Amino acid sequence: MTILSHSTPILLSVLMTLIGLTKAATAQEIDPQDAFYLKQLHTDALAEGQAYDWLAYMTQRIGGRLSGTPQAAAAVEYTRQMLDTLGMDSVWLQPCTVPHWERGEPEQVRIVNSSQIGTQALHALALGGSVGTGPDGLTATVIEVQSLDEVAQLGPMGALRGKIVFYNRPMDEAQLNTFAAYSGAVDQRTRGARYAARHGAVAVLVRSITNRASHTPHTGVTIYEEGTPQIPAIAISTNDADLLSRLLRHEAVRVYMRNTSRNLSPKLSYNVIGEIKGSTHPDEILLVGGHLDSWDVASGAHDDASGCVHAMEVIRLLRATGYRPKRTIRCVLFMNEENGQFGSKAYADSSNLKGEFHLAAIESDRGGFVPRGFTTEGVDSTYLTRYKALTRWAPLLEPYGLELSGGGSGADISRLKSQGGLLIGLKPDSQRYFDYHHNPDDGLHAVNRRELHLGAAAMASLIYLIDKYGLE
Amino acid sequence: MTILSHSTPILLSVLMTLIGLTKAATAQEIDPQDAFYLKQLHTDALAEGQAYDWLAYMTQRIGGRLSGTPQAAAAVEYTRQMLDTLGMDSVWLQPCTVPHWERGEPEQVRIVNSSQIGTQALHALALGGSVGTGPDGLTATVIEVQSLDEVAQLGPMGALRGKIVFYNRPMDEAQLNTFAAYSGAVDQRTRGARYAARHGAVAVLVRSITNRASHTPHTGVTIYEEGTPQIPAIAISTNDADLLSRLLRHEAVRVYMRNTSRNLSPKLSYNVIGEIKGSTHPDEILLVGGHLDSWDVASGAHDDASGCVHAMEVIRLLRATGYRPKRTIRCVLFMNEENGQFGSKAYADSSNLKGEFHLAAIESDRGGFVPRGFTTEGVDSTYLTRYKALTRWAPLLEPYGLELSGGGSGADISRLKSQGGLLIGLKPDSQRYFDYHHNPDDGLHAVNRRELHLGAAAMASLIYLIDKYGLE
Repeated sequence: MTILSHSTPILLSVLMTLIGLTKAATAQEIDPQDAFYLKQLHTDALAEGQAYDWLAYMTQRIGGRLSGTPQAAAAVEYTRQMLDTLGMDSVWLQPCTVPHWERGEPEQVRIVNSSQIGTQALHALALGGSVGTGPDGLTATVIEVQSLDEVAQLGPMGALRGKIVFYNRPMDEAQLNTFAAYSGAVDQRTRGARYAARHGAVAVLVRSITNRASHTPHTGVTIYEEGTPQIPAIAISTNDADLLSRLLRHEAVRVYMRNTSRNLSPKLSYNVIGEIKGSTHPDEILLVGGHLDSWDVASGAHDDASGCVHAMEVIRLLRATGYRPKRTIRCVLFMNEENGQFGSKAYADSSNLKGEFHLAAIESDRGGFVPRGFTTEGVDSTYLTRYKALTRWAPLLEPYGLELSGGGSGADISRLKSQGGLLIGLKPDSQRYFDYHHNPDDGLHAVNRRELHLGAAAMASLIYLIDKYGLE
Repeated sequence: MTILSHSTPILLSVLMTLIGLTKAATAQEIDPQDAFYLKQLHTDALAEGQAYDWLAYMTQRIGGRLSGTPQAAAAVEYTRQMLDTLGMDSVWLQPCTVPHWERGEPEQVRIVNSSQIGTQALHALALGGSVGTGPDGLTATVIEVQSLDEVAQLGPMGALRGKIVFYNRPMDEAQLNTFAAYSGAVDQRTRGARYAARHGAVAVLVRSITNRASHTPHTGVTIYEEGTPQIPAIAISTNDADLLSRLLRHEAVRVYMRNTSRNLSPKLSYNVIGEIKGSTHPDEILLVGGHLDSWDVASGAHDDASGCVHAMEVIRLLRATGYRPKRTIRCVLFMNEENGQFGSKAYADSSNLKGEFHLAAIESDRGGFVPRGFTTEGVDSTYLTRYKALTRWAPLLEPYGLELSGGGSGADISRLKSQGGLLIGLKPDSQRYFDYHHNPDDGLHAVNRRELHLGAAAMASLIYLIDKYGLE
């Protein structure tokens, strides 16, 4: 386009919101100054935000931050130092013991004997937590399945014994919400190995869980179970999954797989925590958080350095605008979300032991894309009251394109549910997320500075409103 | 993130919408089947959409499509052929005469004598329509200004005579809507040369109109005026603009500029039009459109191949789902939006001459990003009625994150305003648009397939509703 004919300045939206508010809410409920403060938060985030610079450091200077690695330790130290610059009342590290998985040598997955294409290497990444094949690799016939149910049906017939089980159910493209589509496909990755192992399979291949037709594979955790053999589990790219599936329609296909992945001894690591003590309700904690760790092969820009810098930027914004919170605001950067969640376990255990109360927690772990709102969850006894309190502010959030709904919060904070507070997940636009998720392409280039900073402003807006008014 | 705890399937949203509708609207107004049809359109677009493949052809096989070039002609022929595959009642070309501007040899802009950095080449692109400097180039002292007003003040004092005027007012980062920020800065590019020339300046440099701190310059049209000398006008990158501005704080800076741009004789070109005749109200036209031309240096993926394939995909979707329109649906791919708008002039002139009536027109010319809604405009006598009719369907659009508002439509269709119909602009998310706008980076890689297809589904949804119910 060349020249825009009209435009609605945001100030007009703010004024329209105020007009709406005077109609919709009583004066006690909402102070018209709130609209102006939310505007100030957004203006400061867009013009002065530091989140993107922090993101650049975490992704380009540190890189992939798998739990137990030196890079994860560097992320702990870097974010601790950055929180130290924000003038909080205290910043500390909370120890946790985390698994340490190592990918090992580059994975090899190779079709060995197709009558149609001969030998063909496939693009592959071992799943996080996978055992290795041993140094000589293994070769077996591939059997394609679409679901865990199919494995449970075929297994007892002996059809999987000695085979490589190939899970190939794609994400449902027609789902508007890509997280719903992801949830509908990811069981193949998390539980595929254990299901196949129950019936004598020697390994699994898993179609990458992504919307994208691509040559690059996407990793992610696989979880074994007690009492079932641990068999190697490797993701292949969606393009290669399509290729393999086409071949299997016409002939038996044997595949060679080799990976040297292994689980090393657990390591000491840390959650990074910073706190501003509340002036009048210090015992009511408002948490903002993301997770520090990522997969080894990605620099984890969207998953989840974005969430960490979102949470840090909330603190910076509140400080830069001179806000003095009534309640205690805590920024928590969790370790080990990806493969074990021992960081969030340590945090929740310690919090429960101390009898703490998180009135609300906001986690950002769905990427740094343009914010579309928040999803929520909580315990039955208090959820509806708190959610209803939240929705009073919908007119204040609407000018920023932010909507409130149910639909969960985040893996790390969901452990705090028993405290009875409101658990909230930032909901960025989801369309691009699984293009990058757990993939080497999840780098700084995939994050837009303005979109990232708007996410932080959205979180800061909600924290401000909850802090000022509570959730009754 | 690893595993999503909850998700709200779109079907649930649809059901909730239906529940809402039965409360909010009478049965005559909205048929509950509409929610299901909109879901069908979105499902088909996400799973079967062709827009992205068309986009790939236009951007990667054809490339930059400046009016008057062979690439623009190729775009006409390609889209005509694609429309021919969609089973429309008729497809035709509408002639128009377009300017033909040629960039010439690579531009040179060079700081020649800084005491701080010596000689330094700047990243530069001549503005569209600019004259050349002549083969020897020109060298002059630079004077920085922030606005056309400043030029009007300094000019009469003789301060600009013989100088290169350097317009350096950035886009306002704090604006939430980047189009509003663009509108607030683009006068420097469109009118900077003529303002400076009135007061004896020899050339202008213009800070690229973009949100991005970048080395690549952004082009765009500059418009001369009768009776004022035409002086060369060249954009420099935002990084180089910052550099030049820093130097100017401390010393006089002379710059060498050279470009061989020229305006050639006008060329015959075409709008591409396809039509499905309405079954019961054939005289009420519903237009969907975008523009075929782009700047020469960009493959114009967001601006505006996305708009063209959006409009084409609307037709494909209506056909694929078996919809038989009551009103006449016309897909119009305009030529020459970027530098003259002679395509839209030809279309509007012809339409007015025939006494046609466009009940509604939707233009997509703000990129292929995730759709956030529609903006509208119209003539005073009918606008409010028609806009109010549109807002009846807000509950149907809300599950797709689509909002309705005022705020203009699009440069090409705005010429149809006098016919009294409702003019509508697709409003995609704006945060990334000016990162790519009129820049070599505006390529296929910058467009996400799902986001693109959702834009087409949004347009098809609105066309369906207007076709079925009218706008009374």
